[in-house]
Amino acid sequence: MNPLLEQIPDPQGLRRMSRSEQKAVARWVRQFLLETVSQTGGHLASCLGTVELSVALHAVFATPEDRLVWDVGHQAYPHKILTGRGPLFPRLRMKDGLSGFLKRDESPFDAFGAGHSSTSISAALGMAVAAKLTQRQRQVVAIIGDGAMTAGLAYEALNNAGVLDADLLVVLNDNEMSISPNVGAVSQYLTRILSGRFYNSMREGAGQALSLVPPLRELARKAEEGVKGLVSPGVLFEEMGFHYYGPIDGHDLDVLIPTLENLKKIKGPRLLHVITRKGKGFAPAEADPCTYHGVTPFDRQDGRMVKKSGGAPSYTQVFGDWICDKAAAESTLVAITPAMREGSGLVRFQQLYPERYFDVGIAEQHAVTFAAGLACEGQRPVVAIYSTFLQRAYDQLLHDVAIQNLPVLFAIDRAGLVGADGATHQGAFDMAYARCIPNLTIMAPKDEQELRDMLNTGFALPGPALVRYPRGAGVGVPLDRDLGRTIPVGKAELLRRGRRLAILSFGTRAAAALQAGETLDATVVNMRFVKPLDTELLSTLAQDHEAFVTVEEGCTLGGAGAGVAEALLDLGLRPSMRILGLPDRFIEQGDAEAWLAELGLDAAGIVGAGRELLERLAPPAPEA
Amino acid sequence: MNPLLEQIPDPQGLRRMSRSEQKAVARWVRQFLLETVSQTGGHLASCLGTVELSVALHAVFATPEDRLVWDVGHQAYPHKILTGRGPLFPRLRMKDGLSGFLKRDESPFDAFGAGHSSTSISAALGMAVAAKLTQRQRQVVAIIGDGAMTAGLAYEALNNAGVLDADLLVVLNDNEMSISPNVGAVSQYLTRILSGRFYNSMREGAGQALSLVPPLRELARKAEEGVKGLVSPGVLFEEMGFHYYGPIDGHDLDVLIPTLENLKKIKGPRLLHVITRKGKGFAPAEADPCTYHGVTPFDRQDGRMVKKSGGAPSYTQVFGDWICDKAAAESTLVAITPAMREGSGLVRFQQLYPERYFDVGIAEQHAVTFAAGLACEGQRPVVAIYSTFLQRAYDQLLHDVAIQNLPVLFAIDRAGLVGADGATHQGAFDMAYARCIPNLTIMAPKDEQELRDMLNTGFALPGPALVRYPRGAGVGVPLDRDLGRTIPVGKAELLRRGRRLAILSFGTRAAAALQAGETLDATVVNMRFVKPLDTELLSTLAQDHEAFVTVEEGCTLGGAGAGVAEALLDLGLRPSMRILGLPDRFIEQGDAEAWLAELGLDAAGIVGAGRELLERLAPPAPEA
Repeated sequence: MNPLLEQIPDPQGLRRMSRSEQKAVARWVRQFLLETVSQTGGHLASCLGTVELSVALHAVFATPEDRLVWDVGHQAYPHKILTGRGPLFPRLRMKDGLSGFLKRDESPFDAFGAGHSSTSISAALGMAVAAKLTQRQRQVVAIIGDGAMTAGLAYEALNNAGVLDADLLVVLNDNEMSISPNVGAVSQYLTRILSGRFYNSMREGAGQALSLVPPLRELARKAEEGVKGLVSPGVLFEEMGFHYYGPIDGHDLDVLIPTLENLKKIKGPRLLHVITRKGKGFAPAEADPCTYHGVTPFDRQDGRMVKKSGGAPSYTQVFGDWICDKAAAESTLVAITPAMREGSGLVRFQQLYPERYFDVGIAEQHAVTFAAGLACEGQRPVVAIYSTFLQRAYDQLLHDVAIQNLPVLFAIDRAGLVGADGATHQGAFDMAYARCIPNLTIMAPKDEQELRDMLNTGFALPGPALVRYPRGAGVGVPLDRDLGRTIPVGKAELLRRGRRLAILSFGTRAAAALQAGETLDATVVNMRFVKPLDTELLSTLAQDHEAFVTVEEGCTLGGAGAGVAEALLDLGLRPSMRILGLPDRFIEQGDAEAWLAELGLDAAGIVGAGRELLERLAPPAPEA
Repeated sequence: MNPLLEQIPDPQGLRRMSRSEQKAVARWVRQFLLETVSQTGGHLASCLGTVELSVALHAVFATPEDRLVWDVGHQAYPHKILTGRGPLFPRLRMKDGLSGFLKRDESPFDAFGAGHSSTSISAALGMAVAAKLTQRQRQVVAIIGDGAMTAGLAYEALNNAGVLDADLLVVLNDNEMSISPNVGAVSQYLTRILSGRFYNSMREGAGQALSLVPPLRELARKAEEGVKGLVSPGVLFEEMGFHYYGPIDGHDLDVLIPTLENLKKIKGPRLLHVITRKGKGFAPAEADPCTYHGVTPFDRQDGRMVKKSGGAPSYTQVFGDWICDKAAAESTLVAITPAMREGSGLVRFQQLYPERYFDVGIAEQHAVTFAAGLACEGQRPVVAIYSTFLQRAYDQLLHDVAIQNLPVLFAIDRAGLVGADGATHQGAFDMAYARCIPNLTIMAPKDEQELRDMLNTGFALPGPALVRYPRGAGVGVPLDRDLGRTIPVGKAELLRRGRRLAILSFGTRAAAALQAGETLDATVVNMRFVKPLDTELLSTLAQDHEAFVTVEEGCTLGGAGAGVAEALLDLGLRPSMRILGLPDRFIEQGDAEAWLAELGLDAAGIVGAGRELLERLAPPAPEA
């Protein structure tokens, strides 16, 4: 065991320590964090920012009986280290290893699971209300970042907490930064608090307000002008029904611990504004918190990350290049991201077309309805979003875009297995949840060139289109940057002609499907369109094939393969068929390739499924 | 044509009129509204509240070139009357008639379609940004109710608008009421503005603040206490980057029109706070706006609504009774509604168990995550929500409830066709979008007794459960209120034994399926569980049936029938099968029974589909 860990006590031990011992614990936690994450990679910068906060929270609150609800989980490694999970860090974010997020079944100290942002206040409010209903004297604390505050869910929870008068402490961990630099009015508001504008203008404003002596109504109006800024720093939260405290230094245990001790004694909804520095204590991360948000293994001296060796560009990168190319040709193209500039490959687009670039903050719902509004007026919005985060905008996709049949192009990244992020982030459901929505065209490319062609295709459509593509590197095909090339809507691509069996691949399993097809001498089709399906081809294939295998990197229930089954039945056929895809359970973290093999979605798995199907059928039936 | 309509000008005509003529128009609009809605039913109270506001907006803005984006649509009838759609009111909310909401393809004056709440600011912001990008001098106005302001989407949009500095006017139509009485801190905040607390405390507070002369840091803290309330009325919006104006009287054209004229000249994000009275000008509706929110035909003299004659209780009512009964027996039961107390049948529950009743406002996301938090602590939350509104909480259902496998019971009302509300409100998608999510148990009762039994079943489960039931009256079966009776999870109910064909019904199409079964001498099964499916029964049926027909009141793509197809294929079978359900397009308003017949989901339709399938098969194949 790492000798540092031996010095880090459990939360009870921490609470018995002197302040200076607690400070030492914070130092060890930070050092351990750097030592391990430099080897495994993971979410570094945010976690360096919450070391002292984590120590303070566990020192003051009687965890796990008192509940800490961490938001997202990007910042929860110190909490994990302090709650007995240090020894698991060598397998951080690996298969069967320690989760990078919060998980209720990983530790009783994880009061609420997380992964997506901005859920903590809602969940903590539920816990606080439960404590009230059962008359338990339990403290409930939500710890939420300033970035997560831009999400509607956080606002809905604040709004509700303010009237329920539950005993809830919200710790606003303000590092002026979510994954991308933070945006939005609330972010600016927080910055103004920090800049001291409030305190300064309060004094000036008070004098100014008093010099006015006009009649009553006029007074009110003038006063309104005069006292702009003449407000307590937390007025936004005060007006939501919270008592606001802060801002305080989130790296000073001598401030943090007594403040939290005091707040423990106060009832009702309270908000403590804590200022932390992302990357604190590691110079390269402090200087460039964006780069060090999520890291690959790096050198602990100079922060240099292990460079990936060449290889094919990632799908993200190919999308990022496409959107720059396309924007040059199409003046109506605008790009929208919900706080995922880097992750979605929009850094260069923002540099080239700042006026057509919209980072709306962690606000997926607004991203989509905002795009709908733009589309109404002749703009051609491209919403760059992860599969898992589009779940947050499901109603907006359906109600605001699809019903109105508006030309919004969704570039859905991280569709399929995502690897280290695990269950909360798998892009497993998009084909199923989108396929049932009328008016959508849904595409999945087999490689990065087809991604470009599909983006062209979707962009040219008069209605909404979704292109889903996975995390990670493309196949490595040579790219031509023809912006005019589209593919015929609803037409699949025949990759190989074989006999008896037809393997229908949706998206990136095409290479495995082709390999399996060679082994089995089966027909292989790159389906291209999840919707509309190429039913003509299905009908033709049914005439001289006995069986179908579909393959997709998405859930089988209601997914693309299910669509094929529906279509074959609609054609009056009696298919012999096997649907391959992600099973009906949440897939945990782990290398995507390993998972694909385990789930039978590699070439061997497809071969196995095809063979089984054919064996069951043999001798050949007269008609498929 | 109604003689009133002849006097109501088009918007251009309205703009040429004198103020007193415009006032007359408002009177006529109100009178026409009462005349027609008393005959057709519809959303009355909100619309009575926006008569003058609608006249003022069209008088001031150059519609349709200037964009009015009405939120929800509950309050947009005056707008419809003013934009040439008066003659269509006799067919308001009927099949092929006038929509009760906004629709882009109904009128160029409907800049953005609506139905669900809180989309207007996002959409209008998109339009304002588009105007900026194309350098058009176009005014964009979002009109949003105070109830809709509780939704996270509205907040996300405000937050983004505040920094984009687009030329956007938000009119906050504050009638202190959404459908249910309004809740939440922001609502209380608005009430405080109206009560004058701000203006009063501002003057008092200013004096108080000045009497303090301690050292600087202490000053800041003390001043913070002293100036609490010493804020301009709109500080919440000011801090979000908006210029706040108001509150003004929304029924006084002499105030409304000049104010809007002035605001037209100002740039940037502006918010005008307008006070209206729900039901204005019709005494019964003013006295009881909740009852007159959505009305059936009524007497224009005394407001008496046409009573429905006896009949079976509605599913909503059966749910409402069940939850009261169950709460008496189960102290951990808590009920959560996103602003749908009346619609979800929770009025009596609130009266009986106020401390276990949580109306979180129009905040579906929070409703679900809040429930998850409660469930973590041993409470047993029941989320009462419409099928169409659960779309708003899709990610919360998946990420916060399903991944953690928490025991939250979803009582999904309005699942299936909803009639007059039309495309935006159809409960068409829940089975498809929920079925792909692991860990969920999904049930659909055939009648109201089974609804009770399924609610018992879901409540007893250790994980999440959904029970979906339709709008309107039950079948009329006698009810026993046994709270102990549950049904075996994943077990279907054989309703009739027949031959060759098996008709599998999900939910409320059971009676039609049974009738069809009699005609065809087919086997009929009440499937009960959309998930988990009764695959054992499917396997047995496949042995002595040649074909399957599935029936559901939900979309066929990825729905319950698709699940049957998947299961049969998984069993290695080659089903001959027809999936009946809602087609892959949005279903417009109209009587549900009429729609069901048109879509082939009545007994005749099922008979037709079954017969076709059997004819195609004849002579009988050796194995299904």
